[in-house]
Amino acid sequence: MLKALLFDVFGTVVDWRSGVAREMEAFFATRGLAVDAEAFADAWRAKYQPAMEGIRSGGRGYVPLDVLHRENLDATLVEFGLEASVDADARDDLNRAWEKLPPWPDSVPGLTRLKARYAIAPCSNGSIALMTWLGKYGGLPWDVILGADIARDYKPQPATYLASVAALGLTPAEVMMVAAHNNDLAAARAVDLKTAFVPRPTEYGPGQTSDLEPTADWEVVASDFDDLAQKLGAKG
Amino acid sequence: MLKALLFDVFGTVVDWRSGVAREMEAFFATRGLAVDAEAFADAWRAKYQPAMEGIRSGGRGYVPLDVLHRENLDATLVEFGLEASVDADARDDLNRAWEKLPPWPDSVPGLTRLKARYAIAPCSNGSIALMTWLGKYGGLPWDVILGADIARDYKPQPATYLASVAALGLTPAEVMMVAAHNNDLAAARAVDLKTAFVPRPTEYGPGQTSDLEPTADWEVVASDFDDLAQKLGAKG
Repeated sequence: MLKALLFDVFGTVVDWRSGVAREMEAFFATRGLAVDAEAFADAWRAKYQPAMEGIRSGGRGYVPLDVLHRENLDATLVEFGLEASVDADARDDLNRAWEKLPPWPDSVPGLTRLKARYAIAPCSNGSIALMTWLGKYGGLPWDVILGADIARDYKPQPATYLASVAALGLTPAEVMMVAAHNNDLAAARAVDLKTAFVPRPTEYGPGQTSDLEPTADWEVVASDFDDLAQKLGAKG
Repeated sequence: MLKALLFDVFGTVVDWRSGVAREMEAFFATRGLAVDAEAFADAWRAKYQPAMEGIRSGGRGYVPLDVLHRENLDATLVEFGLEASVDADARDDLNRAWEKLPPWPDSVPGLTRLKARYAIAPCSNGSIALMTWLGKYGGLPWDVILGADIARDYKPQPATYLASVAALGLTPAEVMMVAAHNNDLAAARAVDLKTAFVPRPTEYGPGQTSDLEPTADWEVVASDFDDLAQKLGAKG
């Protein structure tokens, strides 16, 4: 019997691109810098997977995503020729852009419905700290925060899903992974979790070409979190 | 600046004695067993500190509290001459009594007020699983679940408080420990957390003699969680 739902967060629950671009836009404006904030957000995010790969491969010990984001910010500032324009304190502040990302409009109402029937938790590559402050920013009604920090490894490593399931005292068959990314669901299914796909067709902006459709027979495919709640029998 | 509150849970947020006694009472009734359920609850709980001491001392590797509770249940059944009357499946069910403990009447309203201003989390010796299901049972509005599982050690070991603070990305001075037990607060203060005492004078039943009063100059002494919210400037 299904008892808990684990959620990917960046892209699935919150709109990271708009959120980061908005924070950067405000910063560039106060400094009088003419920079394309969306291009900056995309360039910062493009370093996300390669940075985690060093840890997933075992080449580097686990560090929380906040540390990787901060390193990637430094590199992105260099790319944009801004390394002399932004001091360390300002960089620390900007790194908190990831704690201020807007939920998609259906996220909070859908999670609230789902929480009445299931335990709900992020299983994100974000740290416990990042997920806590992001949850407070957006009013995300998590029961508990699981994910990379619990496993000390990054998705799609099996340990991240399995440690999150174990922390709830459940078996993988009692837990469903919810994500807008087919590869996340494939990794969760490989270790026997149930899966639900919720497309977020503008996560990467208006020209998105990936993850517009499910690429496998996931147990549930839902148009948004309200539809997910409906399909999982959570009261309206 | 104070940013987060950590809460002891058994005794401080929930009434473990009434909750466990109620579950045992119901079980004994269905089996036609004449057993004093409150005495059973007290005897079960009396094995709590000694069981953790084996792990705190390093003599035994970390196991979650659910495992210790289950071992202590076995021993308590022997003490009451009930070892032949309760099979393993029934014992597993009874062990979940700890997931069904009633919050004190002021706990949920007080936590709800406090959550509007601070991050709130259990820093309990209960496992993440136990705290998750207990939270859902009582509607405890935690932002995140911290405590023994995060540290893989039991309070009052310093690591339990410090790992919980670190998981939030904060310093000890930005965090307050809230407890009905003076020794818990002393251990938190020893590693530089702020402290708040909220007495729970019937935690151990009508004849309680310990922890009726603060034994040190804790930063806050409050009569209940509503008073705590008031004293910490959380809106009503």
